[in-house]
Amino acid sequence: MSESNEKVRGRLVELSDDECWQLLGSGVVGRIAWNRAGRPFVIPVNFTVDGTTIHIHSSAYSTLVREVDDSQVAFQVDDIDDTTRSGWTVVAQGRAETRYPGPRTSPGPTVDVWPEGSKAVTIVIVVAEISGRRLVPAQ
Amino acid sequence: MSESNEKVRGRLVELSDDECWQLLGSGVVGRIAWNRAGRPFVIPVNFTVDGTTIHIHSSAYSTLVREVDDSQVAFQVDDIDDTTRSGWTVVAQGRAETRYPGPRTSPGPTVDVWPEGSKAVTIVIVVAEISGRRLVPAQ
Repeated sequence: MSESNEKVRGRLVELSDDECWQLLGSGVVGRIAWNRAGRPFVIPVNFTVDGTTIHIHSSAYSTLVREVDDSQVAFQVDDIDDTTRSGWTVVAQGRAETRYPGPRTSPGPTVDVWPEGSKAVTIVIVVAEISGRRLVPAQ
Repeated sequence: MSESNEKVRGRLVELSDDECWQLLGSGVVGRIAWNRAGRPFVIPVNFTVDGTTIHIHSSAYSTLVREVDDSQVAFQVDDIDDTTRSGWTVVAQGRAETRYPGPRTSPGPTVDVWPEGSKAVTIVIVVAEISGRRLVPAQ
């Protein structure tokens, strides 16, 4: 069963931290994973990388903002090509914190947010670990 | 700050369960999120949907197989278009269980796995909840 696929398969290669940060910074949509009552949940969001932090904007009333503050999250970005069956993935792990707008709050980097609605709250992910892999197509 | 983006934004629409299953079934790469020592982690994997279960193949020696058995996971699939700034996302939540090959083990549906290496273990996600959203581009 395990070798029933006759297609030639690609090779997984670990990425260096530098490559991970470079690829992460090239993305405009990533996926944030967090625990909702102990069960993982994932949604795609627009983001901007600033140093070793990831910035997301969301509404003060969103489930995301209500649930992620001061919790461990993963942030994942990939680029996968169905035709060549190749691509890369990067996952950053860290603690999320929410920043509400106010006179003492730095505006932070701009995030180009696609969905409509208020995005007044910034979620900052302070990245503690990053890793990634590239799937190199078979010859 | 929150309204600094001058581009016209899209509208998020909730998907029905039927739409979620249909879109999930159309994918060949999804992302599984699970907890590694209490911290979420995410990797992309090939998969097949069979009824209300999701099937993934992996090596007996993979981190994924070692860590997900009998635990709550999320499985996320999306299709996002950077040009039209639109797309959809579906996330299924459920319990993962691992099935090792053996004389009493049903082979289950075929999964077209892109990376090389043994994929003898099947991870089955028994989906308990599914939800999704579509981002409809602004006119």
